[in-house]
Amino acid sequence: MVLPEVGIVMGSDSDLPVMAAAGEALERFGISHEMTVASAHRHPEKVLRYARKAFEAGLKVLIAGAGGAAHLPGVIASLTTLPVIGVPVDTPHLGGLDSLYSIVQMPRGVPVATVSINGAFNAALLAVQILALDRLELQDQLRRYRRELEAGVEAQDRRLRRCRGEDEGP
Amino acid sequence: MVLPEVGIVMGSDSDLPVMAAAGEALERFGISHEMTVASAHRHPEKVLRYARKAFEAGLKVLIAGAGGAAHLPGVIASLTTLPVIGVPVDTPHLGGLDSLYSIVQMPRGVPVATVSINGAFNAALLAVQILALDRLELQDQLRRYRRELEAGVEAQDRRLRRCRGEDEGP
Amino acid sequence: MVLPEVGIVMGSDSDLPVMAAAGEALERFGISHEMTVASAHRHPEKVLRYARKAFEAGLKVLIAGAGGAAHLPGVIASLTTLPVIGVPVDTPHLGGLDSLYSIVQMPRGVPVATVSINGAFNAALLAVQILALDRLELQDQLRRYRRELEAGVEAQDRRLRRCRGEDEGP
Amino acid sequence: MVLPEVGIVMGSDSDLPVMAAAGEALERFGISHEMTVASAHRHPEKVLRYARKAFEAGLKVLIAGAGGAAHLPGVIASLTTLPVIGVPVDTPHLGGLDSLYSIVQMPRGVPVATVSINGAFNAALLAVQILALDRLELQDQLRRYRRELEAGVEAQDRRLRRCRGEDEGP
Amino acid sequence: MVLPEVGIVMGSDSDLPVMAAAGEALERFGISHEMTVASAHRHPEKVLRYARKAFEAGLKVLIAGAGGAAHLPGVIASLTTLPVIGVPVDTPHLGGLDSLYSIVQMPRGVPVATVSINGAFNAALLAVQILALDRLELQDQLRRYRRELEAGVEAQDRRLRRCRGEDEGP
Amino acid sequence: MVLPEVGIVMGSDSDLPVMAAAGEALERFGISHEMTVASAHRHPEKVLRYARKAFEAGLKVLIAGAGGAAHLPGVIASLTTLPVIGVPVDTPHLGGLDSLYSIVQMPRGVPVATVSINGAFNAALLAVQILALDRLELQDQLRRYRRELEAGVEAQDRRLRRCRGEDEGP
Amino acid sequence: MVLPEVGIVMGSDSDLPVMAAAGEALERFGISHEMTVASAHRHPEKVLRYARKAFEAGLKVLIAGAGGAAHLPGVIASLTTLPVIGVPVDTPHLGGLDSLYSIVQMPRGVPVATVSINGAFNAALLAVQILALDRLELQDQLRRYRRELEAGVEAQDRRLRRCRGEDEGP
Amino acid sequence: MVLPEVGIVMGSDSDLPVMAAAGEALERFGISHEMTVASAHRHPEKVLRYARKAFEAGLKVLIAGAGGAAHLPGVIASLTTLPVIGVPVDTPHLGGLDSLYSIVQMPRGVPVATVSINGAFNAALLAVQILALDRLELQDQLRRYRRELEAGVEAQDRRLRRCRGEDEGP
Repeated sequence: MVLPEVGIVMGSDSDLPVMAAAGEALERFGISHEMTVASAHRHPEKVLRYARKAFEAGLKVLIAGAGGAAHLPGVIASLTTLPVIGVPVDTPHLGGLDSLYSIVQMPRGVPVATVSINGAFNAALLAVQILALDRLELQDQLRRYRRELEAGVEAQDRRLRRCRGEDEGP
Repeated sequence: MVLPEVGIVMGSDSDLPVMAAAGEALERFGISHEMTVASAHRHPEKVLRYARKAFEAGLKVLIAGAGGAAHLPGVIASLTTLPVIGVPVDTPHLGGLDSLYSIVQMPRGVPVATVSINGAFNAALLAVQILALDRLELQDQLRRYRRELEAGVEAQDRRLRRCRGEDEGP
Repeated sequence: MVLPEVGIVMGSDSDLPVMAAAGEALERFGISHEMTVASAHRHPEKVLRYARKAFEAGLKVLIAGAGGAAHLPGVIASLTTLPVIGVPVDTPHLGGLDSLYSIVQMPRGVPVATVSINGAFNAALLAVQILALDRLELQDQLRRYRRELEAGVEAQDRRLRRCRGEDEGP
Repeated sequence: MVLPEVGIVMGSDSDLPVMAAAGEALERFGISHEMTVASAHRHPEKVLRYARKAFEAGLKVLIAGAGGAAHLPGVIASLTTLPVIGVPVDTPHLGGLDSLYSIVQMPRGVPVATVSINGAFNAALLAVQILALDRLELQDQLRRYRRELEAGVEAQDRRLRRCRGEDEGP
Repeated sequence: MVLPEVGIVMGSDSDLPVMAAAGEALERFGISHEMTVASAHRHPEKVLRYARKAFEAGLKVLIAGAGGAAHLPGVIASLTTLPVIGVPVDTPHLGGLDSLYSIVQMPRGVPVATVSINGAFNAALLAVQILALDRLELQDQLRRYRRELEAGVEAQDRRLRRCRGEDEGP
Repeated sequence: MVLPEVGIVMGSDSDLPVMAAAGEALERFGISHEMTVASAHRHPEKVLRYARKAFEAGLKVLIAGAGGAAHLPGVIASLTTLPVIGVPVDTPHLGGLDSLYSIVQMPRGVPVATVSINGAFNAALLAVQILALDRLELQDQLRRYRRELEAGVEAQDRRLRRCRGEDEGP
Repeated sequence: MVLPEVGIVMGSDSDLPVMAAAGEALERFGISHEMTVASAHRHPEKVLRYARKAFEAGLKVLIAGAGGAAHLPGVIASLTTLPVIGVPVDTPHLGGLDSLYSIVQMPRGVPVATVSINGAFNAALLAVQILALDRLELQDQLRRYRRELEAGVEAQDRRLRRCRGEDEGP
Repeated sequence: MVLPEVGIVMGSDSDLPVMAAAGEALERFGISHEMTVASAHRHPEKVLRYARKAFEAGLKVLIAGAGGAAHLPGVIASLTTLPVIGVPVDTPHLGGLDSLYSIVQMPRGVPVATVSINGAFNAALLAVQILALDRLELQDQLRRYRRELEAGVEAQDRRLRRCRGEDEGP
């Protein structure tokens, strides 16, 4: 079995609908990964154990999603030297601004690489970009992905212009 | 030596100018206490050790102050069943709103009793109110303190009216 | 009949869907409590009477929930030396940020122990943590509750891993 | 002695630098008034007494300024049927947004007429506009005041144009 | 026919669902009033005409509701010396905070008495409180209304306690 | 075929429901225009090409809509000397405040003319106002449009008054 | 004498330190302009007169700066079909967010081209970009200005690298 | 000469006081780096050139700092597959919240690893953590750095306790 390279951690399985996108993105790039529920507040032991073992377990990048007083990414970051990517999960009343502040405003010494609110897909892409630093085939995949993004924009543009009976754009 | 009943924890001694007010308030009520620097991010071990030992060490209430992605109060709260009072310390760019969100928006299961931004004095008062539940002499002190607050308002009112040459108020 | 130890107060029965969670949490821990509707603005007399009688009536902790210009917790806190826990109830336009500010930003001298927006369950847990200070059986219950939280996380984790065909986590 | 028609109330004499402008504005219009320090939190009795006596004491309009969890205007409004004008006083960390929310977001049934952050001068003007409803000489004064505002704008405009060597404006 | 004493102005009939509550409240107190659509931006002439004629037309108080860059209350206030009450109407994206800021933050010299977001009912109550200054029967009505508010709270409280099988409250 | 004078650009066709209003407004004024999908992030080349060619292609005004970290309007503005109008598109979690800040807070040297959140219709009107500077027939159309706005207000006013059985307003 | 093409309007000469930058930018491009103080609230007549005469007076673009409940740009925009550029002036308590909301959130039908908080310089640049649409020499100036911006960046870059002893950058 | 591994880019040398901390942190870990001024808005060509060449030039991680409508990190991220770390630089009026939103809220497909407002030091640490993935001696340095953080906390704690005459803490 392939050892996972990216660990995706969430505080509760209620975050799964948001965090699942990280798994899908990693699969697209063929990056082995695992998913864990490990709440910083309701089960600190498990977070501690997970974060401390992460390096020896061969994990390279950790992605942690949480909402509200979202301590999970920061707590994990304080327990490992692996890069930790934080996903602020949206909240019903404050729209995820509480989550964003709790994740991004880390003190000097312990960074969390924060992505957009509910940006689990981008968190995974960032992990791929990190892993691609010494893997040429991943670089190729990333470039292909960028070309697909471009092609998607072109396709949308053509469709829009066709609908409107306009000439092809620039 | 008297064993401390209230533990005041802060993430950095740069929070001392804010958190000192908690110590002063406790002294006023004759509550034994101790002060600790123990960062959730820069020294998670120490926080773990501190929070886990707090109950057996005879502490009754913990007061934790932190700024920015202010995880200290919540992390401590996840490691003890003692009541934890959180003090959001103001931050240079977001005025402490980041600290407030990071402390108050705790998930179901692990509460932090949050006071106002920089409200270390009130945190200590709250600790006294908790300790006073089964100590009549503390109740008396609290009532005296309230009467002093009232007297202070009356004194300000009199001074204001005297300056303005007005009659005594209600 | 058992005298209530915790008083849950709300400004309107429209807050009941939020505040009911406080009652449920207290029941779980076997804490006797009562629920009152007593608006700081629409019936200040009742609030005054309630808060002033609370101590002699044997209440130990008060939980007050309110939304918007949420004065109820602070007004009660100004009338009693019992610890008052404030629950900011969410509002349709500002998401409860108005409630949060109105409750947490109390002036020096009169603290309110504020929990998260709609955090009535946590308010009750905090009350239990306070009451548990001199009741060992409550401490035991709180520890059991924490172990249940941990077990819940483990169960979610196992279910997630099983779905994904992963090995057991840390 | 002339009985005061407008009562200016503040929670602390630290609000005096802001609230003094209300007194000055009322003096300009020859409206008798009094100033009181009466904190909703540190001396609720005094607020109660003041607000309840206000009507019989011949007061017509009440102006209340407060900062943070600014309950004073709302508490007074709940205790009298006189119009209450609220002045949100600025706060060091949240710029007075906490004060504004605590004053303006009153529940159905008990309004507070809120003016701008630190807008004590305008609070007094509003009181004058209310008192002027059945006093023609106050109406005249208000119109003169408006013409003075216009003249002030014209004077600023002329000065600006003169500095720049421009022709007279429209 | 009775001449209207209160003028309710809104920028668009899309504000009617919010502003209708002002009319209902005035009817309850028997205050004659009229409703006008007059946008500060889409028909400034009409606003100008309305505001300038308001005093001579016998109006005593104006209530203006608007959303977004909500200039209507302030523009009216600049054109009359009658008291103007502003109702910030909620907006789809910013929850009415834009409306609130645009209405409450008026410059020195031209106040708008601002009520809560969508607080049209309270705007009308405030108008009644102003009109009641020299009409005893309105004062009586306002006091009766307050007693109704109290009775409503008591009824809610009894119903809640009955459901829960509790004794009568304080 | 008529060469387009206004270019409407959006980062994704998911912005079309918002941006379509710009096209409709331009059609109403008979202004030729084109619509393009060209993401600043997913296809920077296309944006570059589009913005650089815009001037020679005879475009006079560019309208760009984007949401979140909404760089499209600013990036286009940095690549052309044509006036660029930015439309902040609303976002699910922050209501479009992120879009607004990302568009309006441009640094000294490169302005973007920002309209309201989702204000694509107004963006087009602004473009018409710019184009009308040297075209009298467009000025006439704009004035007719303003009279239609006025007539719309009058119609709403009449309908409201008729419903309520009131006399005609001012 | 040259007739002014751009009118710069501000609500008070206290806005001059911010708005002066607009004048300087216009001078740099040789655009004739005038400056006016004309408050929407303290002198609505003057604003009315100014805005209505603007078109016939030969003005092409209006720049209006205001702070707080910043109605000036919107009120002017409602009275003319010329393009109006709004400058939100910063405010002591809310940082200019109140000004921004009051200016940018205009309703459908009456746009204001909003620039950044205190962005008077950019407002003027935007006016130049509009005027340059049919004036080639202004286009040339704008392009030269852009090349100067580039040169400024290059110079800063060289200085930074020289300080650090680095090679020349890209 | 050692080829730089980390590129630090800022939009203006006015960001140098904030961004210098990134350089210092990298020096501490012996990571070769270069610093560039390259504004996304005032010199888009330079940014384009820089970002496109970064990979072949041997750079591994890019750190970009910007304030306001802070497009630099996102624009760079759209032009390279290297990981880009964004530093929101504080702004005078909105405290850097505008910068934060403009950097963190990137759309699906192009992530920016965002750190705290003015968090240039942490940006560099994150870069080191990324580079350390396949360099054991960097891992060792990072662990030593963490131990230094711990030692710093212990030293602060001892100093605090000594001042207060307390026993050594946990």
